[in-house]
Amino acid sequence: MDVLDKIKAPVLTELKQFNDAFRDTLFSQNPLLEKAVDHLLKAPGKQVRPLLVLLSAKMVGTVGDNVLRVALALEMLHTASLVHDDVVDESNRRRGLPSLRAFMSNQVAVLAGDFILSKALECAADTDDVRVVRHIAELGQTLADGELLQLENKDSDAFSEAAYFEIISRKTASLFSACTRLGALTAGGSDADAERLAQYGKLIGICFQLRDDVFDYGTGEIGKPVASDMHEGKLTLPAIYAVGRSDDASVHALAQKVRRREATDEDIQKLIKFTIDEGGIDYATWHMKDMQGMADGLIDDTKNVEIAQALHELTAFVANRKN
Amino acid sequence: MDVLDKIKAPVLTELKQFNDAFRDTLFSQNPLLEKAVDHLLKAPGKQVRPLLVLLSAKMVGTVGDNVLRVALALEMLHTASLVHDDVVDESNRRRGLPSLRAFMSNQVAVLAGDFILSKALECAADTDDVRVVRHIAELGQTLADGELLQLENKDSDAFSEAAYFEIISRKTASLFSACTRLGALTAGGSDADAERLAQYGKLIGICFQLRDDVFDYGTGEIGKPVASDMHEGKLTLPAIYAVGRSDDASVHALAQKVRRREATDEDIQKLIKFTIDEGGIDYATWHMKDMQGMADGLIDDTKNVEIAQALHELTAFVANRKN
Repeated sequence: MDVLDKIKAPVLTELKQFNDAFRDTLFSQNPLLEKAVDHLLKAPGKQVRPLLVLLSAKMVGTVGDNVLRVALALEMLHTASLVHDDVVDESNRRRGLPSLRAFMSNQVAVLAGDFILSKALECAADTDDVRVVRHIAELGQTLADGELLQLENKDSDAFSEAAYFEIISRKTASLFSACTRLGALTAGGSDADAERLAQYGKLIGICFQLRDDVFDYGTGEIGKPVASDMHEGKLTLPAIYAVGRSDDASVHALAQKVRRREATDEDIQKLIKFTIDEGGIDYATWHMKDMQGMADGLIDDTKNVEIAQALHELTAFVANRKN
Repeated sequence: MDVLDKIKAPVLTELKQFNDAFRDTLFSQNPLLEKAVDHLLKAPGKQVRPLLVLLSAKMVGTVGDNVLRVALALEMLHTASLVHDDVVDESNRRRGLPSLRAFMSNQVAVLAGDFILSKALECAADTDDVRVVRHIAELGQTLADGELLQLENKDSDAFSEAAYFEIISRKTASLFSACTRLGALTAGGSDADAERLAQYGKLIGICFQLRDDVFDYGTGEIGKPVASDMHEGKLTLPAIYAVGRSDDASVHALAQKVRRREATDEDIQKLIKFTIDEGGIDYATWHMKDMQGMADGLIDDTKNVEIAQALHELTAFVANRKN
């Protein structure tokens, strides 16, 4: 059994219910939408987000209909956001398949994303819980806001670690944090439980993104083309750190060239080598391990031993995963 | 005083409250978003939709906070949908100004649209009324679904009036109908009031779109470039009717060429002339007048004389407007 299967074990029945409901809810009679949804369902991803909802819920209460609705709403919001991000970033690959924009068109991707985003809000409304609806609506804004901040950041001259953490908090960690918070709340957990799990979710969301960003330097094995961030004009923590420490004007010029999307493959390989040599990967990994430790410390081992164990394994998986 | 000012008179105070709240609610500290919102606020349009919310509300009850929240949610949903439609249709003009995608970029337009769509749902959540939230979430799906149907329809060989009416029901009339229904409901109107006003809204929504589509044949005075629909590969009711009645294979071939976006300006002018000569405009206008009559018949003249009068004028305005 691989690590992820082991983590899924305590909520396997619920995860199956979730997957069936996800498929049913997105079913549509509209031919273009049907084709789009079929394509998206082919590569469901690692399902870390629904797993977080279900584990957090079971940690503090029972997985009822509203927990499943929250899991659906959040996974749909995430899916819509990925579909639109690929349009924005002009990305042609996603989870080892053509992205929806590449498989169909930008037009279909924009509209299918809108449909799924609105569907997410309908799932939230189905809970009859205004806290959930408000949270999901705010999260939709936060995700778009984070992507816009990233877009703006590409055009700015500054290389700030603070800006980097702000962006990943909004575009990634906010969603992880909503999974654990709303999972706990709709399972009947206390506000204190929900707050603690929300903090846990936020921390592992940051770990997740740091790991993803480190992959891009080609030190791991991942399906997506290496240095795809730099090809899109994005600098992530390892390069921001390495360039920020350098007094060499040519290094700064090289970094700006990458951000303006004017860099050649050779330029990009040069900046990657510089980043690695200057300890950028080690620095990002150190940050990730630090957050991982804090996340682990937030898991209440007295509540539900089996779930607590699964959450610890999930934390380790997020930080150590090879894809 | 022009016609629209006269129609606005009974809800002038409320419309001002709406406009102030619209501006405040979309305010953002994110620089790209701020620039995008500023641009969108420059050309607020005719505000037929908020007007419909406020008039319907006042017809059957009082304009309280929830009525304003519904007006905000619906106008934001409409705005987000226009911003994304311009990306999908590659349109560079909107309300006499560059469209947001032309003014900034497709990337900003996709993300700003997502932000505003999520904001719409937050306004809906602020009503604490699950009927409203569910309706707005469903409407978001219907609008995307309508646009996708239109996109698919361009690639199909059929020229069906039924398909045309299905598309405009979803992409335009559904929003008008939601304005009148939710305006009435949140003002404390009965379900019967809301249903009647929803029917009224649906009918004038169809009138509105028919009028808009007829403009495109160059018989009215409007800011947007004439024949822009045909340039985008869209055939609307006048041409669908005229081509559908013809046995001439060359006419069908010409229409297909337009839909495949392979037509020259000359081809388009030829199809427009054919449509006019074959009575396509008269046919669409007849349909519109028919719906206008039905819409007028649904206005309850015994409820609030001043508002009933304004709604009759609004019906006439929608059907007769010159821009």
